Amino acid sequence: TIDPERFRETFERYSEIGRTDADGLHRLALSEEDREVRDLFVSDLEDLGLEVRIDRIGNVFGRAEGTDPDAEPVLIGSHLDSQPYGGRFDGQLGVLSALETLRAFDDEGVEHRRPIEIVNWTNEEGSRFKPALMGSGAFTGELDLEEVLEHADADGVTVAEALDRIGYRGDDPVGPREEYHSSLELHVEQGPKLEDEGLSVGVVEGVFGMAWLEVVVHGDADHAGPSPMYSRKDALVAASDVVGAVRRLSNRFADDVVTTVGELEVAPGSINVIPSEVRFTVDVRSYDDAVVGDLVEAVEREVETACEREGVEYDLEEIWRIPHTEFSPTVAETALAAADAVGASHRAMVSGAGHDASYVNEMTDTAMLFVPSVDGKTHNEAEFTEWADAEEGARVYVETVKRLANA
Amino acid sequence: TIDPERFRETFERYSEIGRTDADGLHRLALSEEDREVRDLFVSDLEDLGLEVRIDRIGNVFGRAEGTDPDAEPVLIGSHLDSQPYGGRFDGQLGVLSALETLRAFDDEGVEHRRPIEIVNWTNEEGSRFKPALMGSGAFTGELDLEEVLEHADADGVTVAEALDRIGYRGDDPVGPREEYHSSLELHVEQGPKLEDEGLSVGVVEGVFGMAWLEVVVHGDADHAGPSPMYSRKDALVAASDVVGAVRRLSNRFADDVVTTVGELEVAPGSINVIPSEVRFTVDVRSYDDAVVGDLVEAVEREVETACEREGVEYDLEEIWRIPHTEFSPTVAETALAAADAVGASHRAMVSGAGHDASYVNEMTDTAMLFVPSVDGKTHNEAEFTEWADAEEGARVYVETVKRLANA
Ligand SMILES: NC(=O)NCCC(=O)O
Ligand SMILES: NC(=O)NCCC(=O)O
Repeated sequence: TIDPERFRETFERYSEIGRTDADGLHRLALSEEDREVRDLFVSDLEDLGLEVRIDRIGNVFGRAEGTDPDAEPVLIGSHLDSQPYGGRFDGQLGVLSALETLRAFDDEGVEHRRPIEIVNWTNEEGSRFKPALMGSGAFTGELDLEEVLEHADADGVTVAEALDRIGYRGDDPVGPREEYHSSLELHVEQGPKLEDEGLSVGVVEGVFGMAWLEVVVHGDADHAGPSPMYSRKDALVAASDVVGAVRRLSNRFADDVVTTVGELEVAPGSINVIPSEVRFTVDVRSYDDAVVGDLVEAVEREVETACEREGVEYDLEEIWRIPHTEFSPTVAETALAAADAVGASHRAMVSGAGHDASYVNEMTDTAMLFVPSVDGKTHNEAEFTEWADAEEGARVYVETVKRLANA
Repeated sequence: TIDPERFRETFERYSEIGRTDADGLHRLALSEEDREVRDLFVSDLEDLGLEVRIDRIGNVFGRAEGTDPDAEPVLIGSHLDSQPYGGRFDGQLGVLSALETLRAFDDEGVEHRRPIEIVNWTNEEGSRFKPALMGSGAFTGELDLEEVLEHADADGVTVAEALDRIGYRGDDPVGPREEYHSSLELHVEQGPKLEDEGLSVGVVEGVFGMAWLEVVVHGDADHAGPSPMYSRKDALVAASDVVGAVRRLSNRFADDVVTTVGELEVAPGSINVIPSEVRFTVDVRSYDDAVVGDLVEAVEREVETACEREGVEYDLEEIWRIPHTEFSPTVAETALAAADAVGASHRAMVSGAGHDASYVNEMTDTAMLFVPSVDGKTHNEAEFTEWADAEEGARVYVETVKRLANA
């Protein structure tokens, strides 16, 4: 079983790297902070005597051999990158629950028939570099490796260059070397349900489908004074109409639909200049993939209407789409049984947030464990999980991994 | 009279400093490019044998003595800073028409009774540092010098620091050393009227009143996936509602009203994060100062309504207000007579763009000359004035200054 003090101390140590003044985490994928936390992770894996390997997209693996050299391994872990000014629990708690699992096995000489591989996936968040779930998507072949290596951040730095800069462009080919038996990821819920029901653990049976759009509106810069209203082609006016429409889109669809504009940049961005160019993103989600398709079409219509109204041009690109996930009932049932065995209060649920486990599930039987997020708050420095819940989740995690690794 | 070749060559030489790939100008106030163009201007003044002085806010003056040591001087000039990715004519053409005037007088040994002072005002544009017309506003006492020296750009660099960095925080006190007789500024129209009527020169009799607001909306960051629509406090949704309302505000007011949102920044600015903070600006203008006041109140109401609807908080600050200007009929009549004498087609008009001449008019009798802007386009790299019009404007300018300096 876990060593709660070590678990917590490790969490605090990792949380120092990229920590913000408000006790959040600012550790963007492939940044200097990401390098620092990866170095710490690698040294922790080496201290455990694991064989460490790094692949060409920077995914970091550590392997603990099992007693049966022919058995398929179990894959555990999550991600160490964060959102801009995000929280300390998102991703990191899953990696450190996996690390604590291996440490606990090591302490007590727990035998496991199957090898266990721990992983830190590159760029889960999709904030600095798009899309999200990049490392797991490339590993499982769901994303094209060479293509995503060329994706650039807002400063024009590509994923390949950023990997080089922090020294994490590994030599290992990207992709499984052998068949896996199963995979398990622990994560914070990032929503309000577990807390609302006073439960410690969620067994995640599925993930929403989602699509990301990027829109660039091309207007015409001119002076805010002598340019009559009728003569304007204001890129921001058209973009703002779309923001309002996106906010209301969910009204016309199923209950579970969420729609968000998260990025919006205005050029030239001068108080007395009519905006000539606005770039913005749209994120739409539903558990129903057909609804995601309808939402994308609805957004396209809104962009067209708003731009026509204002007399401006636009480019619209769908930059990511991932269908909804149905996780492995076998792994989910193992997790439910483990939660019962540990005595943790729990429920089955689905996730509105995307997770590496979705792509991993395309490769091997996968499920997830959630622990509660206070106020459902995440992607926010105030993100928090009660430590008692984090421990309870880790206990269920250890028990589930033990069962999977001996199945 | 002017030397058209020298005038144009000088214009081309100045246009190289901060020139953009699209033949525009990116020469923000107190930037490295601004330092470079100031150095060139100072050396051109020294070549003419003028006494150069620089005041504590970086305004650069050159003085040509007149024949009467007791006569009040005439002040001529404009500004050399530009908008981000702006045009080459805005401001620069006025400074270089004034320079060409002094060169023409020097060539031909034209005697003038009054001293003539040429000036390059600091930060006319108000883009990097707010407000606009900073150098002339401080000089005439309409803006508080010590206060504006502390205004910071988006990177937190203050006006005082930026002046130090480029070596243009002069020793001279800011303000007139003596009474001026009159002042004249030439500028591009930045609107469509002269071109529409096929005229070469506008004699400007007034300038719109205007106000600038800065609004910060405070929402709450959260995940774009598991956060239900009803639970959100999206700062961008509220701000976008205001952008739409500002676009429509002019409908309810006089014909001449213009309203613009030119800057809008989103934090944290991540595709899958609900925006927690949006900062934006509003620019409202009318020739009628009472209407400007009504517009400010209307914007305030729209901000309040939009923020209440979305459940977010806000701060709103009026960062600048300048009443409408009525220029000196005497100077305007001198300019009209000069235009007739030169044989330039012309009309009287008012300006929707703010100009240093507005503040200068509080200190001494002032008016302006406009030359046409092709398509009315300005604050845009495509800003253009036919060279024949620029020359015609300069000829009227020389003639008007000659009359003022001997009046
Ligand atoms: N869990 C999480 O924050 N994932 C990022 C990808 C997404 O759902 O937007
Ligand atoms: N002429 C000009 O572009 N002035 C800047 C101040 C304003 O916004 O009107």
